[in-house]
Amino acid sequence: MSQKIGLLIGTNRPEAMSLEMAGYYENKLISSGAEIIKIDLSKLPPDFAFSALYHNKGKHEDFNLFQESLDSVDKLIFFVPEYNGSFPGVLKTFIDGLRFPDSFRDKKIALVGLANGVQGNAIGLSHIGDILSYMGANVMGLRVKLGEISKHFDGKELSHPMYDQFINTQIEKFLNF
Amino acid sequence: MSQKIGLLIGTNRPEAMSLEMAGYYENKLISSGAEIIKIDLSKLPPDFAFSALYHNKGKHEDFNLFQESLDSVDKLIFFVPEYNGSFPGVLKTFIDGLRFPDSFRDKKIALVGLANGVQGNAIGLSHIGDILSYMGANVMGLRVKLGEISKHFDGKELSHPMYDQFINTQIEKFLNF
Amino acid sequence: MSQKIGLLIGTNRPEAMSLEMAGYYENKLISSGAEIIKIDLSKLPPDFAFSALYHNKGKHEDFNLFQESLDSVDKLIFFVPEYNGSFPGVLKTFIDGLRFPDSFRDKKIALVGLANGVQGNAIGLSHIGDILSYMGANVMGLRVKLGEISKHFDGKELSHPMYDQFINTQIEKFLNF
Amino acid sequence: MSQKIGLLIGTNRPEAMSLEMAGYYENKLISSGAEIIKIDLSKLPPDFAFSALYHNKGKHEDFNLFQESLDSVDKLIFFVPEYNGSFPGVLKTFIDGLRFPDSFRDKKIALVGLANGVQGNAIGLSHIGDILSYMGANVMGLRVKLGEISKHFDGKELSHPMYDQFINTQIEKFLNF
Repeated sequence: MSQKIGLLIGTNRPEAMSLEMAGYYENKLISSGAEIIKIDLSKLPPDFAFSALYHNKGKHEDFNLFQESLDSVDKLIFFVPEYNGSFPGVLKTFIDGLRFPDSFRDKKIALVGLANGVQGNAIGLSHIGDILSYMGANVMGLRVKLGEISKHFDGKELSHPMYDQFINTQIEKFLNF
Repeated sequence: MSQKIGLLIGTNRPEAMSLEMAGYYENKLISSGAEIIKIDLSKLPPDFAFSALYHNKGKHEDFNLFQESLDSVDKLIFFVPEYNGSFPGVLKTFIDGLRFPDSFRDKKIALVGLANGVQGNAIGLSHIGDILSYMGANVMGLRVKLGEISKHFDGKELSHPMYDQFINTQIEKFLNF
Repeated sequence: MSQKIGLLIGTNRPEAMSLEMAGYYENKLISSGAEIIKIDLSKLPPDFAFSALYHNKGKHEDFNLFQESLDSVDKLIFFVPEYNGSFPGVLKTFIDGLRFPDSFRDKKIALVGLANGVQGNAIGLSHIGDILSYMGANVMGLRVKLGEISKHFDGKELSHPMYDQFINTQIEKFLNF
Repeated sequence: MSQKIGLLIGTNRPEAMSLEMAGYYENKLISSGAEIIKIDLSKLPPDFAFSALYHNKGKHEDFNLFQESLDSVDKLIFFVPEYNGSFPGVLKTFIDGLRFPDSFRDKKIALVGLANGVQGNAIGLSHIGDILSYMGANVMGLRVKLGEISKHFDGKELSHPMYDQFINTQIEKFLNF
């Protein structure tokens, strides 16, 4: 039975490493028969932080397409680069624009951190994990933290000996989560 | 099919409210056909922080019985009172004495916070959630946070109109987690 | 000797309670002789998440005025409402647009959480505290967490018996921090 | 004017790397004229988690000597190894045994994380930072995170090119904090 999985690229930075890593996961997931949908925050309306939140919530047609993509999946993998010691602000702003309170309720979520520093965004994954828990999502315990990512990933291939193994383990567990 | 669920009382305080709350959950869980085992940290060997850790790990027979209880279940509910703005130190010390690294791997865990303050140990549950995620457990997103607990719980009955409903929802989700 | 203190309103929601609470603090601070500057995220350029970050960093004149305001003060008070169990995404997006890495280095910061829930954004203050620590700021330990704020604050007066006392203590400590 | 600084070794593991790192800091601090007092949790009464907490709080003479040491200093440096993805449980258990609520109020604290993993206990420092903030201490923003410590520290000398520089910066800021 085929699963539909959303890959959420957690930044709006153009040509982000997170987007490339989502592609890396996509190839593996497709091999396992999963259907993939990408949710790429770099495609958000540029003024969405004002035009899609608060009194405008639910009224912005282009933003609503993101909500529909999210609503169409029960499982998501978040790709979360480290900016200033945590997740990108735009990721939380995106969440703040979503329908309240059920947008993530009971969804199953895996987290992937990316950073040029050694820590692989451990703190940022802790923060986003708190938020997703608050919203009623079930976040898989095993988190992949890819530190020094520029050194180990050229956008297509991973050179770090352990990273590919971590990813395979995470994907296998997530397909059964 | 019957489930076996461990109730971990996360403090060694004698006659703790957490122990009584575990009893409150036990009654509900037994009605649903689950088998219950209690892991009560007040029964730990008094010097376990020295006699069961580090070079003594695995060598303390009384502590090993706790490890065996833990190993016998796939699901656990943690009852976590708030001490100094987080979980009790003894809970983490207990974890530090367990076999490394697989003691919680792939186990399914629900969290219940208890506090006399209004926050119901939200921060403590965040901290213990990070630790359990690090250890490879899957912590259910929905956490029950019981603030002002002395005011609302006499050890047997809950007087807060919402708390019983929160608990029923958590238990129902947890049995299917 | 007069101090100059920045009040950062951590949301772009129009007519936010955080803005009104900043006004409440302003009145008290002015009485103590401090000079006040407000940094109100609702005045940010609507598309700043795209037009002031990444390859555009430092190039957006209107955004740069925010950077200049920030650079002009050594002390800041952050007013942080709770959205989805943490701080507003727009606050972190604002931080992600600032000059790296010294925008908060060695600055002294106090945190005020606001929420309609009982917890007063304790988790959100923990998260933003991590980020500010990462950036080298010194965050004062005493944090004011104003839960059920709509019930206790009409935009001008506080009706909660303890809240005004908490705020006075925080301000007194902060002026000497 | 001489400062008195407490070095808190945050584990009871015998011959801990944290104890050796405290010695490394001590040498530097003494050069700057500070007076040093060590608070070494490996010297705690073995059953303190039971005999010095709850109804026994304040009654255990050997534990009370730790309280007195703590009370004698306004500044502390915590040496915090990473156990199971956070601080050692014994550190929090020690805190749970201290006089409530003023044991850390207004004290100035610097944090040093040590780990064999790459992350240098970033998550554990975040957790202990929350707890110390809750208790009213002011934790310096700059935290030193010493990852892969066994590889870089032989108990006396640091071989990592940056670590000594990080430590010198932290000490310099802390003496002026």
